[in-house]
Amino acid sequence: MSAQSASETLTPESLVADLAVAARAAQRELAAMSSEARAHALNVAAQHLREGSAAILDANACDLAAGEERGLSKAMLDRLMLDEERLEAVALGVEAVADLSDPVGEIIDQSERPNGLKLSRVRVPIGTIGIIYESRPNVTADAAALCVRAGNAALLRGGSEAVHSNRAIMSALVAGLEEAGVPGAAVQLIPTQDRAAVGAMLTAAGLIDMIVPRGGKSLVERVQADARVPVLAHLDGICHTYIHSAADPEMAKALALNAKLRRTGICGAMETLLIDADFSGAEQLVAALLAEGCELRGDARIQALDERVLPASANDWDTEYLDAVLSVAMVDGLDDAMMHIARHSSAHTDVIVTSDEAAAEQFLTRVDSAIVMHNASSQFADGGEFGLGAEIGIATGRLHARGPVALEGLTTYKWLVRGTGQARP
Amino acid sequence: MSAQSASETLTPESLVADLAVAARAAQRELAAMSSEARAHALNVAAQHLREGSAAILDANACDLAAGEERGLSKAMLDRLMLDEERLEAVALGVEAVADLSDPVGEIIDQSERPNGLKLSRVRVPIGTIGIIYESRPNVTADAAALCVRAGNAALLRGGSEAVHSNRAIMSALVAGLEEAGVPGAAVQLIPTQDRAAVGAMLTAAGLIDMIVPRGGKSLVERVQADARVPVLAHLDGICHTYIHSAADPEMAKALALNAKLRRTGICGAMETLLIDADFSGAEQLVAALLAEGCELRGDARIQALDERVLPASANDWDTEYLDAVLSVAMVDGLDDAMMHIARHSSAHTDVIVTSDEAAAEQFLTRVDSAIVMHNASSQFADGGEFGLGAEIGIATGRLHARGPVALEGLTTYKWLVRGTGQARP
Repeated sequence: MSAQSASETLTPESLVADLAVAARAAQRELAAMSSEARAHALNVAAQHLREGSAAILDANACDLAAGEERGLSKAMLDRLMLDEERLEAVALGVEAVADLSDPVGEIIDQSERPNGLKLSRVRVPIGTIGIIYESRPNVTADAAALCVRAGNAALLRGGSEAVHSNRAIMSALVAGLEEAGVPGAAVQLIPTQDRAAVGAMLTAAGLIDMIVPRGGKSLVERVQADARVPVLAHLDGICHTYIHSAADPEMAKALALNAKLRRTGICGAMETLLIDADFSGAEQLVAALLAEGCELRGDARIQALDERVLPASANDWDTEYLDAVLSVAMVDGLDDAMMHIARHSSAHTDVIVTSDEAAAEQFLTRVDSAIVMHNASSQFADGGEFGLGAEIGIATGRLHARGPVALEGLTTYKWLVRGTGQARP
Repeated sequence: MSAQSASETLTPESLVADLAVAARAAQRELAAMSSEARAHALNVAAQHLREGSAAILDANACDLAAGEERGLSKAMLDRLMLDEERLEAVALGVEAVADLSDPVGEIIDQSERPNGLKLSRVRVPIGTIGIIYESRPNVTADAAALCVRAGNAALLRGGSEAVHSNRAIMSALVAGLEEAGVPGAAVQLIPTQDRAAVGAMLTAAGLIDMIVPRGGKSLVERVQADARVPVLAHLDGICHTYIHSAADPEMAKALALNAKLRRTGICGAMETLLIDADFSGAEQLVAALLAEGCELRGDARIQALDERVLPASANDWDTEYLDAVLSVAMVDGLDDAMMHIARHSSAHTDVIVTSDEAAAEQFLTRVDSAIVMHNASSQFADGGEFGLGAEIGIATGRLHARGPVALEGLTTYKWLVRGTGQARP
């Protein structure tokens, strides 16, 4: 609180440090609470979101008015907008997180040494998570709830366009959490829109344990470039679907259309289609995509299939369109497909379509992406679809957690050693 | 090879990039080999170390002569020195790593979704590991073997004082690995002693997946400060032993003496002793440590126990002595002890000695260090003692892996999704 009232005179670094020290202390209390107590606190917080709906919607109206004045796009304004229905969905989301089974305290493995020492590895919260996000105010509640469920403190930095909405949501959340015995400093909104505060979060090694950026590519890029704190993120979703020679043509068509066109703007959308030279349905597949209004950019052999296919440039193989545009290459067998993927994939999600089980297993084993699929649409790359209940994000880094990350990815472990007086010889 | 011969004209960044690209390609082949094939290759490499002993010992003599000329300390020269016996231990170490069970391919968990998608998370190698180390040439073989066992490529950068020994060891290792079908680029020594090459490794994000520094504090500090690649390391081992009021006095004495004095120079050595004000054996405990030649620096209440106790300064509570020196504080109960640990521990290993099980469980649950022990010596903080067979290092970071890190910490996972044509609704 003193940090907030004095925020005008503090440097961004000392402000973030003050907040993080308070968060650390609150996190220790949170971690010492039972799993049931944390779940209960989230349910109380959800109720406070409902009871505070008038104040939250007022604050949101204020953001919307400011956004219109600043000339935000319709899409941006829609992402920013809350109404009773959307706010109810936010509250339900917090309750759904409360219902998730809690990984904290889970014994990963245990053993007894010949000298009688009993060892176990036990899941514990990571500590303090920094979340840096844009526009959608529902992230405030989602991310805070996931952090709290797994015993973590959350330091949130939302976008300036949603500042009033975020404050109102946070105020309802904190009131609910505190009513249920969680120290309020366990979830905090950075109380300034000064961009330097983001830099201070990114360099707060030792104070913040992990940063999760949620937003567009430029945000993620900045976070990955400047962070001295570990980052959980994906920059690109350049997802491939490889139609093997032994693919069923109908399945290939259905999966390619779904992977590209169901929703073009999500990170699991296919961006490059690889068609085996020995696949018999190539022409029909290309025609079906064109018929659905997808722009195709192909190599010479794909262009030869249909005159409407535009020529692909070298850049196309490394481009995430997030639109009804697709790069298409013809490849000569499984190895050639895997080589293309090794070179161009962002290691998010890559798919093989084939009825040849041996080829599928080769692909699953050798393609080194966070998610590798056989005979399924890459659009399933999602924590909800994976049965994780919710996700804090999708990670394409190689350490700690990969793919959709939910509660388990918000924990780490410690070693417990129980002895009876053993000294080391 | 071309990278090596041209190394004089390359920038350190392009040199490291060339080596890392070759390592990445080799790593893919290594990962595609069976676990048995990787183990076999390590056994062949161990045999080559034995057969190459004359060349390795010659190279080592050359390093030792240069070291003497440069005025290296006796301790440094001893760490550098190899003889038949030490080299045999290195070969046996490589064989021991070959014998470790391989985590790659292990299914962490699996599930089937209502739509029939079958999900599994499978352990895979991390990729390319950079190892930056000092003096002891045995690290060349140890670290390379651990990386290869888990399917990783290793880029090694040893200290200049061991350059000939490291090259000779590497040459024998690579000859053995290649004889057994592992591409030689899977383990590489950075072919220049230019310090800028270390900087290039630390910033090679996307080319090197993890950096492990092995050496003194100044090395680890530099690596942690400059790295843009995730680092697995511990900077300090400021380990505490808390003697609870209900500790058995004999056990307390035995564990304190062992934790401090068995070997004072290892990271698991106790650096601060916390004695409960209600523990009855405080005076005898202090006297026993003094009798064994340990310098004690205490707070006022500890000083009052024995006139030989020197006054502790504020710095002492944050100092890793790595010597027969110990800071000692008197604390008022479990909470006070845990508060001291939360403030001063480097989160490596902290110990409670007590016969009160409830107090022990409180301590194990609430102390948030990589390793938390009850009634055991902190000197057990070691991968071998934990039954891991070997360790690449001990980590005090919070993500990915904590405490002693062996083969599992050199792996990550990917999600495999097996479908029958599911498109996402």
